[in-house]
Amino acid sequence: MTAAAEVGTLLVACPDRKGIVASLAQVLYGHGANILDSDQHTDPVAAMFFQRIRFDLASLTTDRVSLEAGIREVAGRFAMEYRIEYGNRRKRVAVFASKQEHCLYDLLIRYRAGELDCQIAMVISNHEVAAPIARHFEVPFHHLPIDDKARQEAAVVELVKDCDLLVLARYMQILSPEFVARFPARIINIHHSFLPAFVGANPYKQAYVRGVKLIGATSHYVTNELDEGPIIEQAVIRCTHRDSVDDLVRKGRDLEKRVLAAAVRYHLEDRILVYGNKTVVFA
Amino acid sequence: MTAAAEVGTLLVACPDRKGIVASLAQVLYGHGANILDSDQHTDPVAAMFFQRIRFDLASLTTDRVSLEAGIREVAGRFAMEYRIEYGNRRKRVAVFASKQEHCLYDLLIRYRAGELDCQIAMVISNHEVAAPIARHFEVPFHHLPIDDKARQEAAVVELVKDCDLLVLARYMQILSPEFVARFPARIINIHHSFLPAFVGANPYKQAYVRGVKLIGATSHYVTNELDEGPIIEQAVIRCTHRDSVDDLVRKGRDLEKRVLAAAVRYHLEDRILVYGNKTVVFA
Amino acid sequence: MTAAAEVGTLLVACPDRKGIVASLAQVLYGHGANILDSDQHTDPVAAMFFQRIRFDLASLTTDRVSLEAGIREVAGRFAMEYRIEYGNRRKRVAVFASKQEHCLYDLLIRYRAGELDCQIAMVISNHEVAAPIARHFEVPFHHLPIDDKARQEAAVVELVKDCDLLVLARYMQILSPEFVARFPARIINIHHSFLPAFVGANPYKQAYVRGVKLIGATSHYVTNELDEGPIIEQAVIRCTHRDSVDDLVRKGRDLEKRVLAAAVRYHLEDRILVYGNKTVVFA
Amino acid sequence: MTAAAEVGTLLVACPDRKGIVASLAQVLYGHGANILDSDQHTDPVAAMFFQRIRFDLASLTTDRVSLEAGIREVAGRFAMEYRIEYGNRRKRVAVFASKQEHCLYDLLIRYRAGELDCQIAMVISNHEVAAPIARHFEVPFHHLPIDDKARQEAAVVELVKDCDLLVLARYMQILSPEFVARFPARIINIHHSFLPAFVGANPYKQAYVRGVKLIGATSHYVTNELDEGPIIEQAVIRCTHRDSVDDLVRKGRDLEKRVLAAAVRYHLEDRILVYGNKTVVFA
Repeated sequence: MTAAAEVGTLLVACPDRKGIVASLAQVLYGHGANILDSDQHTDPVAAMFFQRIRFDLASLTTDRVSLEAGIREVAGRFAMEYRIEYGNRRKRVAVFASKQEHCLYDLLIRYRAGELDCQIAMVISNHEVAAPIARHFEVPFHHLPIDDKARQEAAVVELVKDCDLLVLARYMQILSPEFVARFPARIINIHHSFLPAFVGANPYKQAYVRGVKLIGATSHYVTNELDEGPIIEQAVIRCTHRDSVDDLVRKGRDLEKRVLAAAVRYHLEDRILVYGNKTVVFA
Repeated sequence: MTAAAEVGTLLVACPDRKGIVASLAQVLYGHGANILDSDQHTDPVAAMFFQRIRFDLASLTTDRVSLEAGIREVAGRFAMEYRIEYGNRRKRVAVFASKQEHCLYDLLIRYRAGELDCQIAMVISNHEVAAPIARHFEVPFHHLPIDDKARQEAAVVELVKDCDLLVLARYMQILSPEFVARFPARIINIHHSFLPAFVGANPYKQAYVRGVKLIGATSHYVTNELDEGPIIEQAVIRCTHRDSVDDLVRKGRDLEKRVLAAAVRYHLEDRILVYGNKTVVFA
Repeated sequence: MTAAAEVGTLLVACPDRKGIVASLAQVLYGHGANILDSDQHTDPVAAMFFQRIRFDLASLTTDRVSLEAGIREVAGRFAMEYRIEYGNRRKRVAVFASKQEHCLYDLLIRYRAGELDCQIAMVISNHEVAAPIARHFEVPFHHLPIDDKARQEAAVVELVKDCDLLVLARYMQILSPEFVARFPARIINIHHSFLPAFVGANPYKQAYVRGVKLIGATSHYVTNELDEGPIIEQAVIRCTHRDSVDDLVRKGRDLEKRVLAAAVRYHLEDRILVYGNKTVVFA
Repeated sequence: MTAAAEVGTLLVACPDRKGIVASLAQVLYGHGANILDSDQHTDPVAAMFFQRIRFDLASLTTDRVSLEAGIREVAGRFAMEYRIEYGNRRKRVAVFASKQEHCLYDLLIRYRAGELDCQIAMVISNHEVAAPIARHFEVPFHHLPIDDKARQEAAVVELVKDCDLLVLARYMQILSPEFVARFPARIINIHHSFLPAFVGANPYKQAYVRGVKLIGATSHYVTNELDEGPIIEQAVIRCTHRDSVDDLVRKGRDLEKRVLAAAVRYHLEDRILVYGNKTVVFA
């Protein structure tokens, strides 16, 4: 098998046309970059084509610079948006936490178990409670209370400006439009309902009042419309008339952990393409 | 085991108080009505108590009249709403269908397989297409096109007035408030989304546009608020960016069948208590 | 969108080597056959490569004969096993039934709803009960009781020899090795357990005795090892101490229908590759 | 609502007879012990009756001694096995771990979040790696390597002799029959397959080889038959041909955590009755 560090990933989105697949396969083959894995999708409504190709860098007969030039040429011909990720560069991640610990713990345990191919560069929280957790997992911790929101966000930006991904692990704060604009499709949030049901505050309470028989959780990229960003992953669990709001909260924690972790993993493995307000997830 | 015809079911709802369980157990025991099965629920928020008791009529040492008098006495003491159902009386059901056949077929096949303890007394549709299906299962069919809605509903009322349950098997018509008022907690509808998401028309289209990763179905009692009635059962299935609206429709059919059939079965087996806009389902 | 009849599907399996993807993409492109859809899998343990490519026949700039010659040339170079399916040729299917009706009904309803792209050419049963069901769906019915098993199988072979797929819809008969050998990876069975648990007779009874909290169903290709063939699809449903064997049978019917129908659909859409005793399902 | 400390739980198993429910309800009512919650089950095959009653101790008009005497009298009449648990006595739990950390972390996080009503009295492991985890959650840790198995088990017995529950959180050791006999229905194990499939070592490897489309996890009480004890809870997750053994291990971890935690919670809340080799779980 090819070592992860020797793998390149090409992500492509462009108007659908004849010859895209062959041209990309050809350029990779021409440089000796053996295709390890490929997944593609054509959206017939949007007339858009999407592809994710993982290829073997160890087998390159030229070098990265000329491969990139070749891809750039194909991209130009087909009006592609694309990016290339190299497996030897681990993404830097900042995790944002509040007093709710379960998603933070879950991400750090998975990180430690090797499930998340990244460097968790820091944990940021407006509360102190996350500090010993970060310390236990030997991740730097930054306590940034929110007295002056603008100033706090400025401090956050300074800390995370080199991060590839910001994960809101039940952070419970609404980010300013300016902040969000800096990190397009790079902030993942977990909302504790099956969106679009129960937008906003206290979704478990809302679910209890409505008397639903399933509760859910949704991970999505953050945009400036609250809980309206592109959905990455969702899951549900059964509930009954016996479940109090506290029971829903407890059941929901399990969902939130899994749904957030799945989204983070998909992002880290370059499996997600965003277009319009939707995602293509090459799971 | 006790034959179904020899089973009585007592359904009770009342303000929560001490001594309810003991009093009901005592009155049944005093008449020799052995308790086969019992399920109860206390809603601490509403301070309400709910119970479903199935008891053996064959073991009665008195008779139904005196048993009922005994229960009535207890009910009076505890301000209970209650009803008693006898297993030898099969409920009469009217199924309403449109051009969408899958739920109609599904109910009739389950009926024929003995899964639904009832008499499906008729199939009513505003379209002719359901006629041969009803005929195949030897159920009377009534074709009632909707030219004049008031007159059509009057004709429907005349047909179903003795029915215990009306099932809207993707009937696709909105019933008038007058009609709904005649059958409180006796009309079950299937909505093709996980309510409260995607209320109204074309929920699969709505789901496609929003880019959800799960689609759902919800069975509920019909009230005058569209898609807002008490929820009985819900289920979901995964979908991906690959699913067109047609794929969602196909996947959803499976959900709709199961979720509607479950609700009908719960109703027929007297497992549902409605209070406020919620259900207690003793599944 | 491309009409189904204008679509070709190429299924490929071969030892993993560099250049396969590019070569296939190139040959299709060279003949103007636009790639609509492609899915691939490399099994690193078996060092095998698998691909399914759907391409647009309407866009061919040569013709099928020369396209096939081109593919044959590539296949030769890479030691590929492959086949090409054309969307304008609908597969012929024979459904085998017994007294259990639910899977038979389910397949015929899906067929009628357009979910299964095939021609259900006949229903074969050793019991008469399936006759009116086949008639209702206007499918030819053959009653072949099993007095003399060898003679019955000979009659079956005569009937189905032109069929592409044989579906055992709870047929409850064990086929002879000679019969099975005639239809490799072309007979799909539904077994009413999550294999490999509960092989053989009465799996619901076995599940009841073991006290499991989930029951399942498994669709698989039939081989000469009973319930040991390559698994195509599986699903489970929760059960509890309350479920009698009859309840398990009822719950299981829903699973069996879905799991069998999914396998049939995957087969009809040329999504399955069998290797060793496993399947690659490009779902 | 009644504070947990003020709640008593009565668990009953006896041959099915008339009058059990009324007698128990009567004795509780006679002592002023209001019934908060009751669940019952009649197994018609075994002709056995099971009940779990939660009652309010704060409302007692007599005292625990006379209530217990009253229950003992009823139990004698009906040949009941029974036990009474009081909410003010928290169960003591010992968690056994190996190098696999995920179940250990999961239990400790749930414990800290208040999901598990118990005192986790200690973590025992034959490896040192669990030590910092126990320390982080402020739970005593005992390192007991297995050089001499008999001596190690003797040391374990000494440590856990006052524990109500032993949880094998991927402990990976087979306990001696003598050890198991000391803790009947008090040792919970997690097995990483949907039993009875894939008994024994390396179930994920076995699942990979068989080519299943679902993998599972099972929590059960430990008996002397390996992986054959009474099943408490099971769950599954989908897998595909793309999943390597490592992927199955990763997916399985999520299942193992949830399935083990559910079993532990059911045990701690006195929701489980064992009879024969099966469980009644009043979930």
